[in-house]
Amino acid sequence: MKTPLNIAILGCGTVGGGVAQILTQQKELLSKRAGREINLKFVAELNPEAAMKRFSLDEKIFYKNGQKVTIDEILADKDIDVVVETMGGKSDFVHNTCLNVLKNGKHLVTANKALLAERGRDIFLEAETRKLQLGFEAAVCGAIPIIKGIKECFTGDIIESVSGIMNGTSNYILTQMQLQNLGFAEALKLAQQNGYAEADPSLDINGGDASHKLILLIKLAYGLKLSMEELSVVGIEDINQNDMDFAKEINASIKLICLAKLKDGKVYATVRPMAVKNDNILSSVNYAVNAVRLDNKYSDTHFLIGKGAGSTETAMSIVSDIVFIARHGEVETYNEEEKYTLGDAKEIAFPYLVSFKTKNLPGTTGLITTCIGRQGINIETVGHNRFSGETADFSIETDVCCLKSIEKAIDDIKKENKELLLQEPKILPILY
Amino acid sequence: MKTPLNIAILGCGTVGGGVAQILTQQKELLSKRAGREINLKFVAELNPEAAMKRFSLDEKIFYKNGQKVTIDEILADKDIDVVVETMGGKSDFVHNTCLNVLKNGKHLVTANKALLAERGRDIFLEAETRKLQLGFEAAVCGAIPIIKGIKECFTGDIIESVSGIMNGTSNYILTQMQLQNLGFAEALKLAQQNGYAEADPSLDINGGDASHKLILLIKLAYGLKLSMEELSVVGIEDINQNDMDFAKEINASIKLICLAKLKDGKVYATVRPMAVKNDNILSSVNYAVNAVRLDNKYSDTHFLIGKGAGSTETAMSIVSDIVFIARHGEVETYNEEEKYTLGDAKEIAFPYLVSFKTKNLPGTTGLITTCIGRQGINIETVGHNRFSGETADFSIETDVCCLKSIEKAIDDIKKENKELLLQEPKILPILY
Repeated sequence: MKTPLNIAILGCGTVGGGVAQILTQQKELLSKRAGREINLKFVAELNPEAAMKRFSLDEKIFYKNGQKVTIDEILADKDIDVVVETMGGKSDFVHNTCLNVLKNGKHLVTANKALLAERGRDIFLEAETRKLQLGFEAAVCGAIPIIKGIKECFTGDIIESVSGIMNGTSNYILTQMQLQNLGFAEALKLAQQNGYAEADPSLDINGGDASHKLILLIKLAYGLKLSMEELSVVGIEDINQNDMDFAKEINASIKLICLAKLKDGKVYATVRPMAVKNDNILSSVNYAVNAVRLDNKYSDTHFLIGKGAGSTETAMSIVSDIVFIARHGEVETYNEEEKYTLGDAKEIAFPYLVSFKTKNLPGTTGLITTCIGRQGINIETVGHNRFSGETADFSIETDVCCLKSIEKAIDDIKKENKELLLQEPKILPILY
Repeated sequence: MKTPLNIAILGCGTVGGGVAQILTQQKELLSKRAGREINLKFVAELNPEAAMKRFSLDEKIFYKNGQKVTIDEILADKDIDVVVETMGGKSDFVHNTCLNVLKNGKHLVTANKALLAERGRDIFLEAETRKLQLGFEAAVCGAIPIIKGIKECFTGDIIESVSGIMNGTSNYILTQMQLQNLGFAEALKLAQQNGYAEADPSLDINGGDASHKLILLIKLAYGLKLSMEELSVVGIEDINQNDMDFAKEINASIKLICLAKLKDGKVYATVRPMAVKNDNILSSVNYAVNAVRLDNKYSDTHFLIGKGAGSTETAMSIVSDIVFIARHGEVETYNEEEKYTLGDAKEIAFPYLVSFKTKNLPGTTGLITTCIGRQGINIETVGHNRFSGETADFSIETDVCCLKSIEKAIDDIKKENKELLLQEPKILPILY
C-alpha cells in the first residue's frame, strides 16, 4: 500500500460539496480501487456551516487551528497532493489560484471549462512542465469519459473527427420544441423551470458553452489551441417551429452540433444547429443528455452518451480523476503535436437544408433553384411550400456542397430580385 | 524519455497482423503518445512469408539467428516487456503460453475472450500477484473502451447495472430480420456471405460469445467469477418473423441483450433476446455494432457504442492497451471485492412480451389472461390475434413481474387445457 493521497477542495457548492460527499461516503471503496488511502483533508469554503449541513460533512475538514482553512494555507500545505477547484468562473483570482496549485507541486482537478478553454494555456503548460496531472474530465460533457477516452483509451488510433451534442440545456430546449411542438421561448422557460437552464441562459443557447468543450477536445485530439474568436459558432436562438417542421420532412431532428474534422492537415471546426438524420444515433439523444461521436481511422465510429451535467455526475467525474491520479501518479502529459492549422469552417462539405421565407409569387422556386444550380450545387428535394396569402415558406435539401457556395447562391438570388426574400434564409447542415 | 518498450506478438493472422501493422506504421506517433519508444521486436508465426506480404511487414521481426523466432525464445527474451497473444482458442497450449508470459515477468495483452472467460482465473491471478498488466480491452466489444471505462474512468462511481448488445453477428441477423423482413435462416446466410458470421456460427447465435463478454464484465464490475454453466443464457435461434411483428406492435425491436444488475447484495445476470422499446437507444444500435450501457449510482446512464469486432478495430484496441502499459507500467490490479453472490436470473423483474400459438377457440384469451392474472401479473395489452383457420397467434404485454411467475402461469394454462398451446410460448423481457 502506497502513502495516502491527500485532497483539498476549493469551494463547497453543488459540485465541490458533491465531491466531498462521495470522497467521504465512499472512502473505503475508493481507497481500495486506488490502491492507497484517499483522504479528504481540507475544504476551503466561506460558509462552512451551510455546506456541512447540506452535504453531511465533518466539521474538521473546514477548519485549521480553529479558523476556516484558507486557500493560501492549502497551497502551502506540503501534505496536500491534489487540489480540486470548484469555485468556477474565469476571474484572475481563479486563474491564478489554479496556476499556483500547480506551482506548489500539486495535481489539479477542475470542472471549469470556461477557464481552461479561454485562459487555460499557461495552466496546461505548467502542469506539463512539472509533470503534474491536470484532471478535467468533468469539464467536458460531465461524466462522459471522453477526456480519458482520448488520452488513455483510443491511443492506438487516429481521430479523424470528433463531434456531438455537448450542451444539455440547448438539447433540452430543442427536444421540447421537437417532441412537444413548443416555441423557443416556451421551451427555454420550461428548461429554466426544471433546472436545466440558468436565469441567464446566454452561454448555453448561443453556443458558448459548447464551444468551450469543443476547444478543449480539439486541443486534446489535434494539439490545436483555438480561441473563442477563431471558432465558427451559431447558437440556437433563431430556431423556430418552421425549422423543426422542415427538418421533420426530411426525417431529421435539429441538434446543436459541435464538430471538428481533420482533412489534409487542417482542422475544420464549427458549432451550429444541424439537421441530424434519424438514422444517426445522435438524433435519438434527447433532453439534457450529451453525446460525443468519434470517427477513428482504425476503429471506425464510436458514440459515448451520458448525462452532460448535474451535480453528482460532475462530482463523480472529478472523483474518478482523483482515483486516476492516485493510481498513476506522475504521468507524462499526452500532447498531440501542434502540426495542424485551422481550416475555414465555410469549406466543410455538408448537404444543406436551406429554408426560405419569400413573397408568394409564381416563378420563385425556379429562380431560387436556378441560382443554387449556378453554384454547381445539386438539389435533392424541395420541401413543402407553405404559402399563406402573400408569403411562402419552403425548404431546399441540397447535395453535398460548402457553405461558401450556398452563401453565393443566396447573394445571387438577392441580385436577381431584391425584394423576393422576406428574411435571411436559414441554413442548416444535414448530418447523416 | 524512458527506455523503449519491446513488444512480441504470438500469431500473425488477421488481428495479430493488424497489430504488427499499426505498431510499424504508426511507430513514431505511438511512441510520442506513450512517452517512450514502442518497438515491435518479434512476431512468432508459422508462415512468415505470407504474413509479411499480407501486412507489409519487415522480414527481420519474424526471424532470430536465421530461424523463425519461437514462442519459447520470446518467453526467454529478457528484453521483451509485453507479449500480445493473438493465436486464439482456449487449448491447453494457449492457456499455458499466456500463463508463462506472465511467469516470465512480461505484461500480457490479448483479445481472447473465450480463454479469459472460461479458463482465465489463474491468468488473472498470476498478473495480479506479479503486478503485471493484463490488457484485454479487445476481448470485450472490440474497440469500445469498456474495460478501461470500468477500470480507469468510472472509478468514482458504483455500477448498478451493466448491459448491452455484445455480439455483432446476432445483432446483424436480428437487424436484417427486423428491417428487411428476412427469416432467421436467410439472415444468417446473409451474415455469413458478408463476413459477419463464421461457417460455424453456433457461439454467436447461441449466446456463448456474448456470455464470455458478460462474464468478463461481471468479474470487473462486481468481482464475481462466473462459469458459463452458472449464467442463464438463451440464444436467438428461435426468433422468427412472428416475434419481430409482435415486438413492432409494442414499438420495440428484438435484440440479444446481456444484462447484469446489482440488487440487495446479489448480482442478477442473463443473456437473452429482449424486446427493446424504441425510446431506448439500444434499439437504434443496428447491424454489427455493439453497445454497452452502464447504470451508475452517481453518474446515471451511459452508453458506449461502436464496432464490436473487425480486424483493425480489435488491433487498435490491443495497440491502445500497449500504449497504456507504456505510459503506466506496473499498476496495482483493480479488483472489486468478492462480496456479491449470484442471484436467480428468474427473479429479475421485467415487463414481459409473451407470445402464444394456440388452437383457434373462443375463450382462449380469457383462459390465458385469467391464468396470468392468477399469478398477480397485470396485463398491459393483448397483441393482435392473427388467427388463420385452426390456429391463433397473439401476444401479451405484461406489467413488471418475474420469469418464475410467467412460467407458473404457463403451467397453469397447460393444466386448464392440455391441448390449447400448440407450441411453447415465447417469453421476451421488455427493456425500456
